This record gives sequence, C-alpha cells and structure tokens, in this order.
Amino acid sequence: MPSVIPPDSVGLVTPQVLHFSEPLPLACGRSLAEYDLVIETYGELNENRSNAVLICHALSGHHHAAGYHSMEDRKPGWWDSCIGPGKPIDTRRFFVVALNNLGGCNGSTGPGSANPATGKPYGADFPVITVEDWVNSQARLADALGIQQWAAVVGGSMGGMQALQWTISYPDRVRHCMAIASAPKLSAQNIAFNEVARQAILTDEEFHGGRFYEQNVVPKRGLMLARMVGHITYLSDDAMGQKFGRELKTDKLNYDFHSVEFQVESYLRYQGEEFSGRFDANTYLLMTKALDYFDPASAHDGDLARTFADAKADFCIMSFTTDWRFSPARSREIVDALIAAKKNVSYLDIDAPQGHDAFLLPIPRYLEAFVSYMNRIAV
Amino acid sequence: MPSVIPPDSVGLVTPQVLHFSEPLPLACGRSLAEYDLVIETYGELNENRSNAVLICHALSGHHHAAGYHSMEDRKPGWWDSCIGPGKPIDTRRFFVVALNNLGGCNGSTGPGSANPATGKPYGADFPVITVEDWVNSQARLADALGIQQWAAVVGGSMGGMQALQWTISYPDRVRHCMAIASAPKLSAQNIAFNEVARQAILTDEEFHGGRFYEQNVVPKRGLMLARMVGHITYLSDDAMGQKFGRELKTDKLNYDFHSVEFQVESYLRYQGEEFSGRFDANTYLLMTKALDYFDPASAHDGDLARTFADAKADFCIMSFTTDWRFSPARSREIVDALIAAKKNVSYLDIDAPQGHDAFLLPIPRYLEAFVSYMNRIAV
Repeated sequence: MPSVIPPDSVGLVTPQVLHFSEPLPLACGRSLAEYDLVIETYGELNENRSNAVLICHALSGHHHAAGYHSMEDRKPGWWDSCIGPGKPIDTRRFFVVALNNLGGCNGSTGPGSANPATGKPYGADFPVITVEDWVNSQARLADALGIQQWAAVVGGSMGGMQALQWTISYPDRVRHCMAIASAPKLSAQNIAFNEVARQAILTDEEFHGGRFYEQNVVPKRGLMLARMVGHITYLSDDAMGQKFGRELKTDKLNYDFHSVEFQVESYLRYQGEEFSGRFDANTYLLMTKALDYFDPASAHDGDLARTFADAKADFCIMSFTTDWRFSPARSREIVDALIAAKKNVSYLDIDAPQGHDAFLLPIPRYLEAFVSYMNRIAV
Repeated sequence: MPSVIPPDSVGLVTPQVLHFSEPLPLACGRSLAEYDLVIETYGELNENRSNAVLICHALSGHHHAAGYHSMEDRKPGWWDSCIGPGKPIDTRRFFVVALNNLGGCNGSTGPGSANPATGKPYGADFPVITVEDWVNSQARLADALGIQQWAAVVGGSMGGMQALQWTISYPDRVRHCMAIASAPKLSAQNIAFNEVARQAILTDEEFHGGRFYEQNVVPKRGLMLARMVGHITYLSDDAMGQKFGRELKTDKLNYDFHSVEFQVESYLRYQGEEFSGRFDANTYLLMTKALDYFDPASAHDGDLARTFADAKADFCIMSFTTDWRFSPARSREIVDALIAAKKNVSYLDIDAPQGHDAFLLPIPRYLEAFVSYMNRIAV
C-alpha cells in the first residue's frame, strides 16, 4: 500500500460504469441487447478532444490500468509503469481511457452478469466475442465520451490486436496505433496452448457446462491449470531459469508427488491458485477464443498488406527478443505488411530477457522508446 | 497391420518377463523388495557377449521398440525406424535389449502392480524412482542376461539421460553412449511443464490420491491434459504450423466453446484421449519426477565435466535444430562437458523441422548419421 501516492502516479482513481442500451451486433451472428462497460480515465480531455488515448487490455487485464483505488491497495493498476505524469503515456498531455472488455469479469457485462432475459447469470449463454466486436463496443464507448478520434489506441499482446483492428475497422478514428508484443493472428502452437487451458476448464467437474454460478461453485482447478500453462508462455525459458533455476523449495528432496521440490513449482501453483480465486472461467474461455479467432487478413485471402490498405494511422510496433508467445517474428509480419501497404511504421525489437511479460515491465529501453514515440504525437 | 512383415523388420516378437527377488535400494531411501522387468530382445547375443545394445525409453515408451506382436498389429514398435536388419541399430550385428522401466505401466512392476505386502495395487505407495535407480535395475537386467558390458546404451530424450547415467554409474559396463535429443538436467521451464501435467492428474477427482485402481476409475481428464501439454512441447512451432496451420475443422466458424474450430485442437484432443485410455496416471507422475530429479552434476557442485571424469565410454550426442523441449544448446552443454573431461565425443545437430519428436522419426540425415556411428562400434 502506498503510504504516500508517488508523484508520478495518476493517484486515486474511481471506476465508472457506462450503460449501453442499443443492441450490439456480434461477429457470431447474435447480438447483445444491452451491456455495461466499466472504465477508468486518467488526465483531462482537452478542448479539441484530440488527446484521448485508449488502452486495450490483454487476456486477464481490465480497466484498472494505473493508479490506486484506495490507500490500502497493495499494488497500482496493471500498466502503472507506462501511464502517469512523466511516464510514456503522460497524463499531463493525454486523456487516457482504460476499459474492461465486454465478456470480462471485472465490471463490464460478461458471462457472470445477469442476463436481462432470464435474470440469471448468462453463463454458457453469453455469446462468443471477437476482437472486432470489442473494437465496435469501444467505438460506442468513444461516442459516449465524445471522442471522435483517438490520438492513439495502445495495447500489448491481445491489446495490440485490438489496436490493430481499430485501424482496420475505424480508419478515421485513430491517429496512432501502438501494438506491443502482439501478432497478426495466432499460430497453431498458440491455439494449442489455448485449447489445453480451455479443456482444463471445460472438463473441471465444477464447471457445470458454464452454469457454475447457480451451483455456488467455481471451477478452480481448471482455472488454476489454465493459468499455470499460460504463465509458462509468458516467461522466457531464460527468465524462468534466472528467476528459479533448479532451486529447491526446501534444502533436500522429498521424493514424493505432492511436495513442492523446486521453486518454480511453488511459483506456478501460487499463480494458479491466486488466479482461480479472482477470474471467471467463462471469461477465460471467451478471451482465449477471441484470440484464436483473431485473423483480420482472413477477409483478404490472408493478405495482411491488403488488410491494412485503408488504415490511416501511423503505427508503432514493438517486440521483445525473448518473447516466444508472440515472438519478434510475429511483429515483423505486421511491420512487413504495413510497409508493403505504404503505411508509416516505427518498429523496435527490444533486447529484454523477460519474455512476453516484458511489455508489462519497467524496462528502461522500452520505456524510453515508448516515451519518445508518444511525445511526437500531436494533440 | 502388415500383410507381410517388411524385410527390414525384426519380425514377430514376444516380450519376456524377468523376475528379480533381490531388494533394490532406491535413491529415495526406500527399496523394492522384488520386481518384474518386461523386455524384448532382437538379434542374437554373440559368443563373446560383446554385441549387446540397451535401448532406454522416453517418458511414455516401453519395451516394444521394434517389430510386431502379431500380424494384426497396426503399427510396429516405437523405434522400428532405427532397429532392424540394415537399420541404424542393425540386428544382424547387434543383440538389442529393450525394457519397460521400473514404475512403468506396460508389464514391469509399477504403481498399478500388486504390492506383495498388501496384495493390492501399490498406487501412491509405489516409491519415486530416479534415473539412477533405473540404471541400477538395468544393470541387474544385464547380469541376468549374462551381459557384462554393453556395446552401447542408446536412448532419446529421457532415454538419453539413462544412457548418460550408465557411463557415470557403471563406467566399465558401457563402451558407447548415445544420447539423442536429451539434456544434462531439466530447465525451470521443463520442470514447469511437468508440474502442470502433474497438477492436472493430482487434481483430477478420479485420481483418489493415486488409489483409483480400487475405485475402478481412471483419472482420464488429468492424463488427457497432461498429454496435451506434453504434445505441444514435442512438436516445434513450425512443425505444428506446417501440420495444422490455422486450418479449420469444418468450413466455417462455430463461435462456441465446445466445437473444435481448428485442426490442431482436434489433433490434441485425440492424442490426449487416446493416451488417457492406455497410460497409468501414477506412472506419468513418476516419469515426470524422474525427469525433474535427474541432475548428475549436482553430486559434483554442478560441474558436469567432473561428473563424467570416470566415464570410459565413447559418446555420440545428437540434437535437432527445432527441438525446444531439449534444445541443441542442452546437448552442447553435454558435449562441452565431455570435451572438458577429455572424452571421445561425436556431436551432430540435425537440421529437422519436427521438433523434439524428430528422434522417433525416419529422417534421412539422422538415420545416416546413426548408421555411421553404430557401424564403427566393434563387436
């Protein structure tokens, strides 16, 4: 908990809930009759309404991207290292909007919300949401906030996919797109990891076909396993090695199946258990499916350059050398397509040992590049 | 099924069971009072007993390494591409011994076997077995077969670890050690993947603390997930991409959580389900623990060169360029240590797109190198 709010923090923040009552048509063919989006904003919208930056979150992210909810908070928002006065997304210049995506479990309408048609939680009836759907819902959010055009849409990992989709779906409404540690679509291996996570949840006896809310249970084991698998892909082999090596949990081996022998086992179990207590299983399924389905080039016979043909934004693409979930090669696919499409694109591959998680961390070279790109955005 | 046995096959083979009644002391401090080992042999032991080759299996392997059990067999043994007349381990020259390791579930004594002390399956009471323990049990097997010294001990992956351990535990009893796609110890990431697999099994409601035999159930879900995770690590990202890409299972997206959208999901589910019907959950735990614990250099302050100081074997180390489970760098750690220890070592990194699984496949360059090394072994 901060005894004093640090001077480069956005400080104490309060989420707001916006209700949308116009039905949202979805890629799956269904629609949501009405929905809530929970957001946080940092900084002030300028008179021209030209300084708004949208933050798109990754798999398990949410609207609480920066600052503190109370003086009792142990940790600030998930991207606090990048958002605040003097930070890359400088809240003295920018009006920052962060939301919890539709289908989420942090306040926006999702599978755990009451279905207005039945009064019970949606559960398995909640429609599958795609990255395109999210961007459409974010465009309505922009309308509601009076933002005609974002100065920038910014995101890491799955958030980067939303930033890219913005330039395709709403070319006139985004001036800069920043996609960090992202990919133009999942590889078969990426989908495979998602499928393991989904099967862990779907086969958990407490999942009850997605209707676990009504049973007052939670498919904790499935969520735990899903998170454990995920975590392995967020760290590089080297980062795991440096963090844990083969360090033993106790000073001698136990030679049984239940004891934690190595620190890395303890770390993974902790991560898994902590996650299973705070995340919704249906949301996890939904987020992994949105990732699997993301493939904007599929509408253009797989031609990614053609996909970006109408984009008007300038692009900043960043990757991290040891990221093996969305490796630098995946970012270069995007960069190559943007160059072929004759777009303005800056690309930086940052030498960092931390793997995919690097995009969340205060790595000096990363922050410097981020600052420098954001500073050149006219507002 | 072979309508005719191919001419380069070892043909129809019959497993044999050997019973050992002298207690085997184990690394964990416990011992096994008695045990069976199931083996297959191919070729003939020569008069000097100098042409015997031991095949050590990997995680889910067994004694059935080559040939067919009957004319109805759909597939030959797991390493049939490498064992047979005219193949790398040429059964016209070598007497080949393949076994199911202690703790296995294919005929050797393991957690599913009856504990002579109770008459019931060992289950959770079966001791944890290490690579050293396996090598000790294999030395007794060699004694029983009248083999004082192996011409070669050969294995891939976990099998390679056993081959390496042989040169350390019994330097006088092995002339050549061939460790393919192996590692001198697991990395934190390797352990992490094993831990996910174990947690999947341990948290399966049908696991019953390892006593599922008595309940007439099988923790299928845990085994399925464990195998799915494993399979991802056996294939390279590229191999998965080439094999499945983002190919859809049906011609359009279903937008739900249960349907199989992509071929790779279908493949993984099939692999997982098939495995869960034939493999023992306790054996899976045991094998992954044996992998985790393998670290022969730990007895020499982590100095791998010193670990091999007394080895007398010649070494052949092979790796595959796209193997990310046990990458070429892991094989080079072994090679560097052997060179530092002034041992004879041949090393080949084979350019192959298939990932870790390559060691099981008939890749021409691999087979040629394998043949060429085996041919120079005097018998």
